[in-house]
Amino acid sequence: MAEAVEPHFPKPLCAPQASRGYACKFDGPLQLACGRSLAPFTIAYQAYGKLNRARSNAILVCHALSGDQFVLGTHPMTGRAGWWETMVGSGKPIDTDRYYVLCVNVIGGCMGSTGPADLNPANGKPYALDFPMLAVADMVRAQAMLLDALGIEKLLCVTGGSMGGMQALQWAASYPGRVVSAIPIATSARHTAQNIALHEIGRQAIMADGNWCGGRYLEQDVRPEKGLAIARMIGHISYLSEEALARKFGRALQNRSAFSFAFEPDFQVESYLHHQGSTFVERFDANSYLYITRAMDYFDLAADYGGNLKNAFPETDARFLILSFTSDWLFPTSENRRIAEALGEAGVDVGFREIASHRGHDAFLLNEPDLFATVRDFLTSVAAKQGIH
Amino acid sequence: MAEAVEPHFPKPLCAPQASRGYACKFDGPLQLACGRSLAPFTIAYQAYGKLNRARSNAILVCHALSGDQFVLGTHPMTGRAGWWETMVGSGKPIDTDRYYVLCVNVIGGCMGSTGPADLNPANGKPYALDFPMLAVADMVRAQAMLLDALGIEKLLCVTGGSMGGMQALQWAASYPGRVVSAIPIATSARHTAQNIALHEIGRQAIMADGNWCGGRYLEQDVRPEKGLAIARMIGHISYLSEEALARKFGRALQNRSAFSFAFEPDFQVESYLHHQGSTFVERFDANSYLYITRAMDYFDLAADYGGNLKNAFPETDARFLILSFTSDWLFPTSENRRIAEALGEAGVDVGFREIASHRGHDAFLLNEPDLFATVRDFLTSVAAKQGIH
Repeated sequence: MAEAVEPHFPKPLCAPQASRGYACKFDGPLQLACGRSLAPFTIAYQAYGKLNRARSNAILVCHALSGDQFVLGTHPMTGRAGWWETMVGSGKPIDTDRYYVLCVNVIGGCMGSTGPADLNPANGKPYALDFPMLAVADMVRAQAMLLDALGIEKLLCVTGGSMGGMQALQWAASYPGRVVSAIPIATSARHTAQNIALHEIGRQAIMADGNWCGGRYLEQDVRPEKGLAIARMIGHISYLSEEALARKFGRALQNRSAFSFAFEPDFQVESYLHHQGSTFVERFDANSYLYITRAMDYFDLAADYGGNLKNAFPETDARFLILSFTSDWLFPTSENRRIAEALGEAGVDVGFREIASHRGHDAFLLNEPDLFATVRDFLTSVAAKQGIH
Repeated sequence: MAEAVEPHFPKPLCAPQASRGYACKFDGPLQLACGRSLAPFTIAYQAYGKLNRARSNAILVCHALSGDQFVLGTHPMTGRAGWWETMVGSGKPIDTDRYYVLCVNVIGGCMGSTGPADLNPANGKPYALDFPMLAVADMVRAQAMLLDALGIEKLLCVTGGSMGGMQALQWAASYPGRVVSAIPIATSARHTAQNIALHEIGRQAIMADGNWCGGRYLEQDVRPEKGLAIARMIGHISYLSEEALARKFGRALQNRSAFSFAFEPDFQVESYLHHQGSTFVERFDANSYLYITRAMDYFDLAADYGGNLKNAFPETDARFLILSFTSDWLFPTSENRRIAEALGEAGVDVGFREIASHRGHDAFLLNEPDLFATVRDFLTSVAAKQGIH
């Protein structure tokens, strides 16, 4: 049972500035990989373009760790542009004039889908660490329930970068009959030791913040802002390449001509990090950060399918396009190629392309003409086979 | 004026377990790059091997950010082996049977050389952030004053990895007449934007710790242990390559066969990081970490010599050997090659070698036979020209 409701952002960090989009409340439980379940729960999402009569032109865009459902338009919290306006929109590679584009706030998130900042019906207090642990498969299961509620049986494409790419892979593995095509970008079929280590340091920074209060900061009306900002800074460094940082900042000083010989931010790169940290804490919940990073750490698609990645895709007719970027050291080409090779071994129709970019992992969000052309061509071909022009 | 004194470790973090080595107290000021000066000050050091009659066989080993003067033997705080026992010792590439090896705790450190944990003579309280800001050139100037006090005019070689390599370069630039040879390893002539960013996040973690107390934690008898541990974890990730982490840990679990579905360390790599963090805080002072990382950030040898790195080495007769490691992403080969090229342009006798290793930046501390053979051959050749066999 699902019911359309107004999306409710738990404890808004700043005042909503624009449309909050859609939400759907489910009474029935969401069964989770950890063995627990969640009920009731809400899934918030955004929709762009029009669903055709055959309901065959739906594309699911999956967001990354720090993303949300606001792909296009003005973000209701920050007032800034959506996170994938380069890729999605009228006339863009994921063309909202042709396709019906959905993006769903992941379960565990903090933009309207049920997460640790929401009230636990068992005691009326925020879940905090009583929220059940999540897996990427749970995010995908919740999305599938939403699509059921919306009457969408098949996805023309499921795509996303980073954790969004993990969800695209999981979709093809969990629901092989529901995916016509998939474009996982700058991702991996498993989180590596280095990925896990970077996440764990961010989590430690959050939990070390005295304002974290064992997770119960909302009840104390405080927030672990310093810890979350540090976690975000660590993430940000991993999203950029050394070359991107050198080109963008180098050793340039911030508003000064000589060193301060103090611990203020002398360098532009320091000011940039501070800014990234301080703006993130205004829109993101610290416990959501803990849960979502943990779900990524747990992600290992091969392990879930008998230890061989090709076993995750035995029955799929979906066409795949796997994309990586040369300077991405967080989700390097080697991890993406490994996915393409496993799909090839499974007899799946798969293309792989490494795109030359100096921008690191963040390239998937930025102006990369090769990325756009490759996605556009692939989607046009997939859509044509489905009679969508 | 210099006076040999017992080394005194400020506010020992744990009880000394072994010989504390040597120290020298200077009444006169140490002039600093920031424009301030330090007086009195103490320089703690260790010495291995015997100085020959001609005083021509001294090799200065310079330690890295988290290192100290205990190159060999049992560390007085940790009880563990010295940090460069692979490279230095009887019969080792830096052979203490032939050479007199010195290692000096950097000014600003916390192992006996004057640093922010020491008492400020102006008010009898720990310096904390009243300690003057430091530069790599200041570390080297203090070392030169110690060598003067010891009656050592020339160094047969000055060497070190990472920040130790920065000091080796600075020695050749500041005291071209006193350096017969230099082996900077896995280093850079300037800290890059990525290097600065990683340091700044570590500093933010320390300063975000409520126990940091604006730097005056010693007076409150507390320590910012959580913040310093996080800074150390960030550092540690940058010292290891993705491949080294994958080989060492992969996705192996720690003492369990399945996920805990909790925020405890499930993965071995998490337990390893926790261990690295918790052992570091027992031996290192948080304010020293702030000062030394800042000195590294400020390091830009070209900027100090009119914007062209070759100008830093106009008068030197020293022979150089520049070494890098293939998988070092913190001080990559490109930065080391840049040093070699500048030396070549300056007409200096320089060799450059990139050593194949999957171990990342830490390779300079580990068992790398190619590294050892290269250093041994170079030193033997340098020594032979000086009549040392």
